Amino acid sequence: MSDAPTSLPTSSSASLSQDPSLHPFDRAIALKALPDGNWLGHTSADYRNMVGPYGGITAATVLNAILLHPARLGEPVALTVNYAGPVQDGEFVIEVEVFRTNRATQHWMLRLVQGAERTPVLSATAVTALRRQAWSGPELDMPDVPPASSLPRAQIDLAGVPWTARYDMRFVRGALSLDPESAASDDSCTEVWMRDEPPRPLDLASLCSMCDGFFPRIFLRRPGFVPAGTVSMTVYFHADAQTLVAQHDAPVLGVARGQVFAQGFFDQTAQVWGQGGTLLASSHQIVYYKE
Amino acid sequence: MSDAPTSLPTSSSASLSQDPSLHPFDRAIALKALPDGNWLGHTSADYRNMVGPYGGITAATVLNAILLHPARLGEPVALTVNYAGPVQDGEFVIEVEVFRTNRATQHWMLRLVQGAERTPVLSATAVTALRRQAWSGPELDMPDVPPASSLPRAQIDLAGVPWTARYDMRFVRGALSLDPESAASDDSCTEVWMRDEPPRPLDLASLCSMCDGFFPRIFLRRPGFVPAGTVSMTVYFHADAQTLVAQHDAPVLGVARGQVFAQGFFDQTAQVWGQGGTLLASSHQIVYYKE
Repeated sequence: MSDAPTSLPTSSSASLSQDPSLHPFDRAIALKALPDGNWLGHTSADYRNMVGPYGGITAATVLNAILLHPARLGEPVALTVNYAGPVQDGEFVIEVEVFRTNRATQHWMLRLVQGAERTPVLSATAVTALRRQAWSGPELDMPDVPPASSLPRAQIDLAGVPWTARYDMRFVRGALSLDPESAASDDSCTEVWMRDEPPRPLDLASLCSMCDGFFPRIFLRRPGFVPAGTVSMTVYFHADAQTLVAQHDAPVLGVARGQVFAQGFFDQTAQVWGQGGTLLASSHQIVYYKE
Repeated sequence: MSDAPTSLPTSSSASLSQDPSLHPFDRAIALKALPDGNWLGHTSADYRNMVGPYGGITAATVLNAILLHPARLGEPVALTVNYAGPVQDGEFVIEVEVFRTNRATQHWMLRLVQGAERTPVLSATAVTALRRQAWSGPELDMPDVPPASSLPRAQIDLAGVPWTARYDMRFVRGALSLDPESAASDDSCTEVWMRDEPPRPLDLASLCSMCDGFFPRIFLRRPGFVPAGTVSMTVYFHADAQTLVAQHDAPVLGVARGQVFAQGFFDQTAQVWGQGGTLLASSHQIVYYKE
C-alpha cells in the first residue's frame, strides 16, 4: 500500500489479460505494475461466478501480486483472503504493503480496491519464507482413491457460471447436486480430481486457486441450492515452486469437508494432494449461507 | 489504523492491566482507548512464553480491540493473526481499521506496533457478523473421551514459561514430553481438557486464546525440544457470546493435530469443543520449526 492514495489509472487494463497466446488462467491473474508500487488487474469473463469472479481466481491474483513483487523474500507459506464485498466486472487495483521483512520470513498486507473511490473489496495477509532443509514427515495420508483416468469428467453446466468449465473435475465422492429433490445428507465430504482446463502446469498461483475449487459444503448437506459465499479463506502452502514443477499438469486430489454449520456460517477444511501422495496445500474457509 | 501516525503516548500503561481485582486474563488483554481510535496495551508477566508473550494471549488482545470497538457490527466469525516479529515486554499499540462494513458483515484490518518507531510486530484481519437463525447441523463429532474430572491435572513446570500455569490442562492423549530420550512418533494428535486457572467464565476472548493452547506438534513427532513458533493462526468462531455464557467456567476439550511437516513448517488443525459436544471454534495455524 502506498502512503498517499493514488487515483486509478485511466489507461486500459493490463495488456497481458488480453493476450490470446496465454492460458486463460494466466490472462485472469495478469497484473500490470503501477508507478506507485501497486498492481492493476482486470476481471476475467472466463472465471466468472454467479456474482463476480470465482473466489479462487481472485485469491490467486492477490497471490500473484506477491509473486511478482520485486521485494519478495522466499515463497508463499500462508495466505488469508477476506472477501469483503463483490468484485465488480472491470479493473481493480491490488495495494501491496510489505509489513515486515525478517531474515527468513516476510509479512504482507494487501487490499483489492475498485473504482475512483477506491472501494475496499478484499483484504489479505500473507507470509513468504525462505524454505530450507529440515526434518520432514507427512502425517495425514492421502485417501486411497481410484485414479482420475478411471473416472468420468463431471459435466457441470450452470448458466452464468463459466469458471467451472475452466477445471476438469472428476468426483470420487461428494459430487455437486443441486436437485431440490435430493436427500439431505449428514456428510459434506468431497473427493475430487482437479486440473486446469485446458491443461496447464501446476504452480503456486493455480494451486492457490484450486484450494477454493469446492462448491459450498452446504449444497451436500441440504437439498437443492442454498445461497452461500466464502467470507474468509486461508491457504497454507506445503510445497515450493520447484516441487510443483514435478507435478506438471497432472490432476491433484482435492478433499474438502465441513465441520459445523451454525447460525448462517460453516467452516470447510480442505487438502490438495499431488501425485505420489504429497500434501501440496491445506486450506480452510468460513462460508456464509442463508437457509 | 488512523490515517496520520501518532506517536506513542508517554503515559503509563492501561490501568486495567494492573487492577488486582481482575482475573490475570482480563489484566493481560486490557486495552486503553487512545484519542486517535487505536488501543494501548501492555504485555503481561502472567502469560509470558519463552520469547515474548504466549501467542494466544496476543491473539485474544487483538480480538479485544475489536470487541471493545464502538463501531463494531456483530460478533467475531473469523480472526487471522500473523506473528511477524517478537513482542517486546512493555507497551504496545493496536491500530484498528474498519476495512468495510456491510449490512450483516464487517471486515477489519489490524496491526500491533511497538516503540517510538512503531515497529510492526503483528498483522491481523478479522470478520464480524450479525448471526441469525438458520438451519444448523454439526458434522464432526466430539471425540468420546473421559471427563476432565477423571484425569489428573498436568504439571507443566517449564522455567521461564509462566503462561502454562494459567491453564488447567488435563491430557486425554498426546501430552507434552520434552524428554530427549522419548521415541519419535508418527501421531501428533493431542486431546486435552482446558480451562483458565484460576477458573473464569468462558468468553470469546478466552476461547480465542485457548485455540493457541497446544504446544507445537513437532514436540510429539520428534524426541526432545525443537525450536518452533507460530507464524500465522486463524480462528473461526462457531458460537456467539450468548452461547458461551452457558459454558460458564467448565473445561473445553481441545483437539489438535499436524497434517504435514515439511521444509521447516508444519500446519496444525484444531477444534475446541464445549460442554454438550458443541464445536465452539475451529482453528488452524502454520508453525515454523528448526530441526
